[in-house]
Amino acid sequence: MNDTFLKACRGEKVDYTPVWIMRQAGRYMKEYQEVRSRVDFLTLCKTPELAAKVTLQPVDILGVDAAILFSDILIAVEAMGMHLEFSDKKGPILGEPARTKAAVDKLVIPDTEDSMPFVLETIKILRRELADKVPLIGFSGAPFTLATYIIEGGSSRNFSHTKRMMYQNPGLFNALLEKITATVIGYLSAQIRAGAQVVQIFDSWAGILAPYDYEKVIFPHVKTAIKALKKLDVPVIYFANDCPGLLEIVKKSGADVIGIDWRVDMAHAVKRLGKKVVIQGNLDPCVLFGTKEYIEERVQEILGKAHTAHGHIFNLGHGILPETPVESAIAMVEAVHKYGRN
Amino acid sequence: MNDTFLKACRGEKVDYTPVWIMRQAGRYMKEYQEVRSRVDFLTLCKTPELAAKVTLQPVDILGVDAAILFSDILIAVEAMGMHLEFSDKKGPILGEPARTKAAVDKLVIPDTEDSMPFVLETIKILRRELADKVPLIGFSGAPFTLATYIIEGGSSRNFSHTKRMMYQNPGLFNALLEKITATVIGYLSAQIRAGAQVVQIFDSWAGILAPYDYEKVIFPHVKTAIKALKKLDVPVIYFANDCPGLLEIVKKSGADVIGIDWRVDMAHAVKRLGKKVVIQGNLDPCVLFGTKEYIEERVQEILGKAHTAHGHIFNLGHGILPETPVESAIAMVEAVHKYGRN
Repeated sequence: MNDTFLKACRGEKVDYTPVWIMRQAGRYMKEYQEVRSRVDFLTLCKTPELAAKVTLQPVDILGVDAAILFSDILIAVEAMGMHLEFSDKKGPILGEPARTKAAVDKLVIPDTEDSMPFVLETIKILRRELADKVPLIGFSGAPFTLATYIIEGGSSRNFSHTKRMMYQNPGLFNALLEKITATVIGYLSAQIRAGAQVVQIFDSWAGILAPYDYEKVIFPHVKTAIKALKKLDVPVIYFANDCPGLLEIVKKSGADVIGIDWRVDMAHAVKRLGKKVVIQGNLDPCVLFGTKEYIEERVQEILGKAHTAHGHIFNLGHGILPETPVESAIAMVEAVHKYGRN
Repeated sequence: MNDTFLKACRGEKVDYTPVWIMRQAGRYMKEYQEVRSRVDFLTLCKTPELAAKVTLQPVDILGVDAAILFSDILIAVEAMGMHLEFSDKKGPILGEPARTKAAVDKLVIPDTEDSMPFVLETIKILRRELADKVPLIGFSGAPFTLATYIIEGGSSRNFSHTKRMMYQNPGLFNALLEKITATVIGYLSAQIRAGAQVVQIFDSWAGILAPYDYEKVIFPHVKTAIKALKKLDVPVIYFANDCPGLLEIVKKSGADVIGIDWRVDMAHAVKRLGKKVVIQGNLDPCVLFGTKEYIEERVQEILGKAHTAHGHIFNLGHGILPETPVESAIAMVEAVHKYGRN
């Protein structure tokens, strides 16, 4: 098996910089669209054979150094007791957003084996299929990010319901975060027991917070989750999106790897994150709209700046966009393998 | 006249920290809603008596230290030749987004006196009305921010059309930015000649860019605009939203004042922006959902951290939200005046 990614996660010396792509199984790939044309998104997430199939596609087609479980961060929120549907236009919609004590009290801390067995089954299939290929990453949304969906009922522009609860009812807000944190720990622990070799915690909305609030209200839960997961002895990646204001905080998360978005210069990130964490990132997904030569140039720029880091895993700074040409993703992977550290 | 704000913009010693609020004339205020119930948004922008009236409301009601012209950054885009309308649900809609050379060539560099006389008339009324009160701020969108609207045709999630043009057709993208920069310079120069005592350039979407692209592609136009405006001898404020990854760049903009959003800690901003620029900001607008006591606490936190800056003008980190209680805005202004530097 190609264990370059696993070694890089642990900060060990590697022959070349490993690379994978957030949302690498997805709509930009015609093989994915073919599967998706037959089932809706949630059914795809919940059908192990199909979820495994689309998980494997980018491994073969792009030549990335890791596979990531095909699923959605809101699967765990549904298991907490909320009604979930996906609208092609509006994105995820959660019925009856939880904004009161009664609503928060009603949410459960799900048992993954009981309520999300399909995720564990997918992981088991994948570990068999990936045995001689690359490692498998499991994942979950971070406590705060999941809280925003629970409180807003979907995506949001200003997250004013979330922040309203945070500022007006800090006790309730914290109780909700505690419940989600327990969910995240249980969910990722089950994924690890089923075979996930690395886990990534996606904090997609961390960056909407002032660092003051992030550090005081949110970060303790991030640390709690990571501390619990570290006992299971797999590397943990913490990805905080829109992170440039948070680097001095997230470096203390306890995660082995810190994922960063494209809004921060890699050289600054290396300096500010220090020498103890491996850095994952951070090409703007839109650079993949450029020519192959331009993609190579930007890949080299990031590789060069990351060279002094404790370790580097190449990735985009956010999920790959549906309109991305698949050849551009391949060009990026090839450029990383060609120019990455040795 | 209360010239505390003007002095602070110039980096001079002030008796207390001045404060104003981005989008201080707006829907959170019932006096504004009363005017707005009679005319649509664009008519309000284009009717000098009414635009002046709503500009003055927060000066009297909140006790802020500056007035800002009531208008919209897209007024100048309409004057460049695009069709503009505002939808209550979708926000601004610009007819036929400009994504080709032919479309960019068709855009004009407008003459403000001819195509936006109502803005200049509003400014003249305001200077008379504000004579014994506070200074008047004129404003414009920044070149890149206006470009995003011109290319996307409105608001956007990933700005993929904009970035596509930037990466695929850098020559055309630069030609568009040059045209907008000339527009911004002409528009703000006319505002200054009509009586604006300070101008603010709003770069609302600067933060969607990787610092690499921002510095190389966008920032030269920001500097060009500021350099031209500085000849007119009024202070220039440059507000870059989602700025934490850009501070080391924006400090070289030539602006007297750098406006920052709430995603960066004020203490970090002071350190990273250095001792030559005045800093404006940066309370999370959602803090105004909290209690009066909590607002006071957060105001004091920011004032304390800004104390070592070259100068500080208090503001929110972004526009005030429509659902904000007006008493909270008043509480914030009072707290700044009570605890600000002397």
